[in-house]
Amino acid sequence: MTPNQPGQMPKMPIPGVKYLIAVGSGKGGVGKTTVSVNLAVGLASLGYKTGLMDADVYGPNVPLMMGINRTPMATGERIQPLEQFGVKIMSMGFLNPGDKPLVWRGPMLHSVIQQFLRGVDWGDLDYLIIDLPPGTGDVQLSLIQTAPISGSIVVTTPSDVSLEDARKAIFMFHQVKVPILGIVENMSFLNCPHCNERIDVFSHGGGRRTATEMQVHFLAELPLDPQVRIGGDTGKPIVLREGTAFIELAKNVVARTEEVSKEEGPKIEIGE
Amino acid sequence: MTPNQPGQMPKMPIPGVKYLIAVGSGKGGVGKTTVSVNLAVGLASLGYKTGLMDADVYGPNVPLMMGINRTPMATGERIQPLEQFGVKIMSMGFLNPGDKPLVWRGPMLHSVIQQFLRGVDWGDLDYLIIDLPPGTGDVQLSLIQTAPISGSIVVTTPSDVSLEDARKAIFMFHQVKVPILGIVENMSFLNCPHCNERIDVFSHGGGRRTATEMQVHFLAELPLDPQVRIGGDTGKPIVLREGTAFIELAKNVVARTEEVSKEEGPKIEIGE
Repeated sequence: MTPNQPGQMPKMPIPGVKYLIAVGSGKGGVGKTTVSVNLAVGLASLGYKTGLMDADVYGPNVPLMMGINRTPMATGERIQPLEQFGVKIMSMGFLNPGDKPLVWRGPMLHSVIQQFLRGVDWGDLDYLIIDLPPGTGDVQLSLIQTAPISGSIVVTTPSDVSLEDARKAIFMFHQVKVPILGIVENMSFLNCPHCNERIDVFSHGGGRRTATEMQVHFLAELPLDPQVRIGGDTGKPIVLREGTAFIELAKNVVARTEEVSKEEGPKIEIGE
Repeated sequence: MTPNQPGQMPKMPIPGVKYLIAVGSGKGGVGKTTVSVNLAVGLASLGYKTGLMDADVYGPNVPLMMGINRTPMATGERIQPLEQFGVKIMSMGFLNPGDKPLVWRGPMLHSVIQQFLRGVDWGDLDYLIIDLPPGTGDVQLSLIQTAPISGSIVVTTPSDVSLEDARKAIFMFHQVKVPILGIVENMSFLNCPHCNERIDVFSHGGGRRTATEMQVHFLAELPLDPQVRIGGDTGKPIVLREGTAFIELAKNVVARTEEVSKEEGPKIEIGE
């Protein structure tokens, strides 16, 4: 183990978890949780043992989108994740259901996220997907600095406003040396359900252009499909249907994760 | 002046500012900044002296949407706001332009927001619009607890996921006794530019339904119009054109603000 730099916390591995993937965005509302949920269910449907950790403690939308909300049980000191569509899930929404906002200061937030990461009985997983809170604030930074993240995904819409914030997220991951698997452009285009003509509601192509400019991979272009939103609102992720762009995204994420892990070279990890 | 409750900071008035309006949302990406920008420019075009404070320090999109980005000057110890489309503006985007994310902890954030509120030379204003950061975290709460806010606006899309978080924002304002002017449903519907048929991309009507359920006013239903996004991306707010729903929103906000101020009754304010 190399000595840590001053002020940097050690990135202890999470026993049993092979790859930890962080899904972030500079801006909220770009579909980060939609991507996380469909990616996790997609990976599970491809046969990978998958977990999904909802790190957005203020606005946890994973329970609604996965159609599950029960109180998790504890075994000894460890919390048992819930399971839906073959994915193990943990979310603040399970612990604070209803409409009351959670008003916590930074340090408490940090501690609950560490608890989710290391106090949950994830078991053996190929992939643990972390749905980060939107933005590039201190909570996001603390988390990606302390978790042994294999790779990160930055979700954006094609609008300039969203791309402006996506670039900040890419800088953040670069800064803390977390490999970037690539950019996902969500809400890329809409095919009118009436006339089937294409509508570029939030513009188009900016995700790919930004990926080229910033020399990161481009992972997927996902349509603005009302069915995606309906899948989220009803707790039935769209990836459960056949032939969606999300399953391609899952395959690209697998390929990029393996690529990035090889680049990183073999690791010798020494436990506590 | 009534004595403050323990732990509650005094809400000192901002000299020269008549009404302080906070625009919030439970979730990011619902169009909170689009609403703030168009509301501010709309109020100015109605003849009100208006300011716009961008309190989203991590993802400040106001400069891009208002088409202005220069470094503000200081006069003595006070910062001079920039002016565009008749609106006085202050944003962290002016001080930290470019793609580097701002990595600040809570207390620094709190201090810069107080600086924007009280260290900026706003002059005489009828309305100062505050574009809050998305969510219901501690930054939002600190701000609305310390600023003498006349009324708040909660922006949501019609999707259940967004409404889930909007309810949290309404609870937050209730909790700290900030009057709620009402809910705005953004991205309500899209008229296909090709066949003119209506598409309910993010569902429809949930904003009005939630307003009824939670006994708050419903202020406006704003279309998901690609022209609104183009206006934002090019720094030319759509309200500058004639006949948009945003000017109706501005008029409703004026009416509700006056209504709420009357309900509150006459105030005797004693300065320091």
